[in-house]
Amino acid sequence: MPFVRPNIAAMHGYTPGEQPRGMEYVKLNTNENPYQCSPAVKAAIGRVCQAGLQRYPDPAATQFRERAAELLEAEIPGITPDWILCGNGSDDILTIVTRTFVESGDVIRFARPSYLLYDTLASIQGAQTDVVNYERDWTLGSRFTELRGRLSLAFLANPNSPSGTAIPPAEVARIAAALPCPLLVDEAYADFAETNCLHLVAENDRVMVARSLSKSYALAGLRFGFLVAQPHVIFELAKVKDSYNCDSLSIAGATAAIDDRAWFKRTRGAILATRGKLTAELRERGFECIDSQANFVWCRHSKQSAHALYQRLKDDGVLVRYMKYEGWGEGLRISVGTDEQLGTLLAKLSAIL
Amino acid sequence: MPFVRPNIAAMHGYTPGEQPRGMEYVKLNTNENPYQCSPAVKAAIGRVCQAGLQRYPDPAATQFRERAAELLEAEIPGITPDWILCGNGSDDILTIVTRTFVESGDVIRFARPSYLLYDTLASIQGAQTDVVNYERDWTLGSRFTELRGRLSLAFLANPNSPSGTAIPPAEVARIAAALPCPLLVDEAYADFAETNCLHLVAENDRVMVARSLSKSYALAGLRFGFLVAQPHVIFELAKVKDSYNCDSLSIAGATAAIDDRAWFKRTRGAILATRGKLTAELRERGFECIDSQANFVWCRHSKQSAHALYQRLKDDGVLVRYMKYEGWGEGLRISVGTDEQLGTLLAKLSAIL
Repeated sequence: MPFVRPNIAAMHGYTPGEQPRGMEYVKLNTNENPYQCSPAVKAAIGRVCQAGLQRYPDPAATQFRERAAELLEAEIPGITPDWILCGNGSDDILTIVTRTFVESGDVIRFARPSYLLYDTLASIQGAQTDVVNYERDWTLGSRFTELRGRLSLAFLANPNSPSGTAIPPAEVARIAAALPCPLLVDEAYADFAETNCLHLVAENDRVMVARSLSKSYALAGLRFGFLVAQPHVIFELAKVKDSYNCDSLSIAGATAAIDDRAWFKRTRGAILATRGKLTAELRERGFECIDSQANFVWCRHSKQSAHALYQRLKDDGVLVRYMKYEGWGEGLRISVGTDEQLGTLLAKLSAIL
Repeated sequence: MPFVRPNIAAMHGYTPGEQPRGMEYVKLNTNENPYQCSPAVKAAIGRVCQAGLQRYPDPAATQFRERAAELLEAEIPGITPDWILCGNGSDDILTIVTRTFVESGDVIRFARPSYLLYDTLASIQGAQTDVVNYERDWTLGSRFTELRGRLSLAFLANPNSPSGTAIPPAEVARIAAALPCPLLVDEAYADFAETNCLHLVAENDRVMVARSLSKSYALAGLRFGFLVAQPHVIFELAKVKDSYNCDSLSIAGATAAIDDRAWFKRTRGAILATRGKLTAELRERGFECIDSQANFVWCRHSKQSAHALYQRLKDDGVLVRYMKYEGWGEGLRISVGTDEQLGTLLAKLSAIL
């Protein structure tokens, strides 16, 4: 197709983690929550669905933003709904941010290994990438804040995937202050961490924090994420979003989800408990793994190749994510499932190792 | 915010039609279907919701594309699912097409008066617009196919909004062949028309046809649209779409929707019947209005200003869409509601006129 932009023609699309249809796997490869969402979410979706879907949704998702602002008041005193922009998943938020700040030919900076979508977003926008490798202890060196080229946006997944590590908020504040461009802190996994960077948004208008309901609220299938930024930043970003990017069912479901604090506390607690067991059991079996701040664990075995292990587990009906980063190495990212799924994984691993 | 791209900072966001919350209007301003969607859609959504939303949706929306390909076989013999790309509403499709073909600084051509979003999409992409006015008889002159500037994409809403007129497929074929760039035929309203351009996709790989489930399937609140294009074109566009742009509920609901042919036939019939009455009654009351191929009617009154009428109707609880196009003029676009809503509208109009 000769009319396609060269950057699009040259790129490979983003490849999401395997989503097998049909066969039943113990699925620990895409960081989905192993539990069902709050019953209140299903009830809210049911009500909206029964009332009819013939009307357009609220383009501003007012209902969600009002409730979210109340909940975030503890972290950002004085926050109002105009600090919040809703997206069709946090991937939509990342797209909107990219299109708002990045001209074709500009540079987007991000760390490696990290979320692979940042590279895809740069390709689509016709931007260059400036990839800064994590240090071996998963900190970021001074290269991450240097002024080089037409740098117009930096992404920082925090907690990071696949490592599950988090850079402390004070260090993120220092990075944001030193960077000559806006910083998108991608907190898709922050609900599983001990800290987050929300309060930095109030201190520095170049800091934006993206959140997802996919993992911590068990709503990957619903597509809902949001961004927290200062109102004058949200004002610009809102011009770029599709007017009706969030549907009526997801707005109602997402609002019910953040409203059910008891469900959130209980589910988060269960996942953190299983994460602890997973980490300990992997280490006992000869895996090197880092303490995780997310709902997955990144590991490498001292004797077995990561790819062979991935394939053996897959053959045995257990899907984990094999990842290989050029110039960095490979490993397995294993999502935290239920205790029962953990039992299956460990039994299979014992048989393989 | 100094870091925002100049094209974004300079633009006004797209303003969707009024979506009043709280007060109950007879709402005839955004071309929503006045009927509830098929019960099969609600049942399908209910099933997926009850099964749980913790897993990511199928990025390829396979289920919908398989069923859609079967249904479109009558119009495009031999069509397979890889001729179809699903979107989070057809606005998402228009965005994907723009990002695939249009470089910053390129030119997008479209007619006026037409769908206002085309201009917004150009602004976001940093593109120039080349706007060609419709002739007074709602045909397009030769200026629409001229090679001028860095033309990289043309949009054609067919049937057009706000006029409700359609350019015959043979003429669209001629336009597509003469244009030096791809042509997106936006068929958001084609389900209400006598003809459509689907068959042109097979004849010319530069023709793409976008469809929406918002109007003809009463699913504006669900956000689902799709594009039909040749597989090598879909392949490029798929790189640009968000992997998980369609959620699990909308994929299931949209599939059930296109599957219920009896509902579609019945609802379409009702809307076309009311459209006929609306047109005749408006003409009797001194309105000049064009025969519509869509689910709305474009009209102007011989004596009353369109804006005054819009305001009086709004005060009386009836919302219609007032539109004014620079260098073209103004008018009212009235969506086809139920016969009961039509009765209310006509009673109010009789009182006003």
